[in-house]
Amino acid sequence: MLKVGYIGLGLMGKPMARNILKAGFPLVVHNRSRAAVDELVAEGATAASSPADVAAQVDVVFTNLPDSPDVALVALGEDGIIAGAHEGLIFVDNSTIKPATARHIAAQLAGKGVPSLDAPVSGGDVGAQQGTLTIMVGGPAEALETVMPVFRAMGKSITRVGDAGAGQIAKVCNQIMVAAQMVATGELLILAQKAGADPQKVVQAIKGGAAQCWTLDVKPPRLFAGERGPGFKAYMQAKDLNIVLDTAREYGVPLPATSGNAQLFSAMLQMGMGDLDNSAVIGVIEALANEKLNIP
Amino acid sequence: MLKVGYIGLGLMGKPMARNILKAGFPLVVHNRSRAAVDELVAEGATAASSPADVAAQVDVVFTNLPDSPDVALVALGEDGIIAGAHEGLIFVDNSTIKPATARHIAAQLAGKGVPSLDAPVSGGDVGAQQGTLTIMVGGPAEALETVMPVFRAMGKSITRVGDAGAGQIAKVCNQIMVAAQMVATGELLILAQKAGADPQKVVQAIKGGAAQCWTLDVKPPRLFAGERGPGFKAYMQAKDLNIVLDTAREYGVPLPATSGNAQLFSAMLQMGMGDLDNSAVIGVIEALANEKLNIP
Repeated sequence: MLKVGYIGLGLMGKPMARNILKAGFPLVVHNRSRAAVDELVAEGATAASSPADVAAQVDVVFTNLPDSPDVALVALGEDGIIAGAHEGLIFVDNSTIKPATARHIAAQLAGKGVPSLDAPVSGGDVGAQQGTLTIMVGGPAEALETVMPVFRAMGKSITRVGDAGAGQIAKVCNQIMVAAQMVATGELLILAQKAGADPQKVVQAIKGGAAQCWTLDVKPPRLFAGERGPGFKAYMQAKDLNIVLDTAREYGVPLPATSGNAQLFSAMLQMGMGDLDNSAVIGVIEALANEKLNIP
Repeated sequence: MLKVGYIGLGLMGKPMARNILKAGFPLVVHNRSRAAVDELVAEGATAASSPADVAAQVDVVFTNLPDSPDVALVALGEDGIIAGAHEGLIFVDNSTIKPATARHIAAQLAGKGVPSLDAPVSGGDVGAQQGTLTIMVGGPAEALETVMPVFRAMGKSITRVGDAGAGQIAKVCNQIMVAAQMVATGELLILAQKAGADPQKVVQAIKGGAAQCWTLDVKPPRLFAGERGPGFKAYMQAKDLNIVLDTAREYGVPLPATSGNAQLFSAMLQMGMGDLDNSAVIGVIEALANEKLNIP
């Protein structure tokens, strides 16, 4: 059975690491703050002192960190994974970072004989807890085959999109659609209410037609219940949209809709709503329209 | 059994009228151009000489016309439905028009004792042919109860959203989400391809997660097959988005994302793509990015 390392035990990483442990894999963990490490050690994991120390002890080492520079440092820095490289090691990054960074890390680690998989996820903290995440994978097919039993402990839909970086490109594409749906949901709920219709009835009427989407299924009931907490934090959505726009600029693809949506999430952060759910972007539309969504 | 009239036998109206006929309702039809009338007469309908003439002969008279002024004229003009008003008549409009116009027509006809239902639909020409449309209804509940057997011949999801105009408000909301998904689909497919990933694999990877929607399920396979014909014509999507923006202005709701999406559909028309499917808005992104979606 594969020995697994997990570095980065945040809102997503901790429940994902826990599911690996529950599936019976020996687990070595590392995290900047100690509390999450202690929690998983109490459940049977062992603690390591650095990313290099984790890598040296395991067959597969995962990272789940906030942004591109964090992953680059943990993978390639002093005491990083590269310093613990050994034959048979596979590197997997569950973070959402720039495809270009993923490709750079993969190239550097390949130089030490370590294959890499970029494997960002979608499905939020609930998906992480329940092991029902969607995992988008870039990198060598053989490495994915080896790691697949571990992925199965974390997600229900696992798709290899292509070579290094392709998983991150899929995640970029995912965030284009998710942001569009979140903003559209906010706009339509506030317009429905201010125009004199019942927003709940409107959602009921349209969710079975061409407008059907996961967002309309899942988010309005929470908004109608007055719940705007995460879920998926708005500042992470904003960070991901920056990755989308950086990537689009790099490859020369103007994104007229997504660039506007990114501005609305940027406004959301300025308005002090960064720790709320991404669906709480409706708060920006509320402010613009001077109309609060009623709690039925 | 209700005697039914249907005025406006276009891309949507003709198959919807046909399904009413197939369900066994006696049907009287009227249309500006004669060919569609002859077709339905050959299938068992009878022709009438004017909207007033249709209304005078039936229990329920439907309209399905391009835009707000068309419906206002056919409902309230000389030789309009109002001129054929009689006890027991119910007016139903399947067009997508401004909620304010729907409310005005309903008020005028109520003055003649005729209840009105605004009942725009979603689901495209395929939904119209198969009788699987989503129907969003505004108006009196008793009138809807009377007309329900006819609606069941046309649609699978029939929801009363509220009083007069509420069906049109729901349709406005529907188009906000549909436009957002169409544009996002175009942006993500072109970005995926230009960034070096396989757009088909990307769609496969993300369609089961938080990005899931009817648009991602239905439209990319057609685009990958090189099919950009309607479906739902872009100039109708553009017209509907004008209704969305007019309604939003009327009720004081800024729509930062939808206003941008409306501009992209406006560009699509200028670029000569108005008769294509709404998903062909990807053509605008292709032009901006100077990158054509490959046909695999």
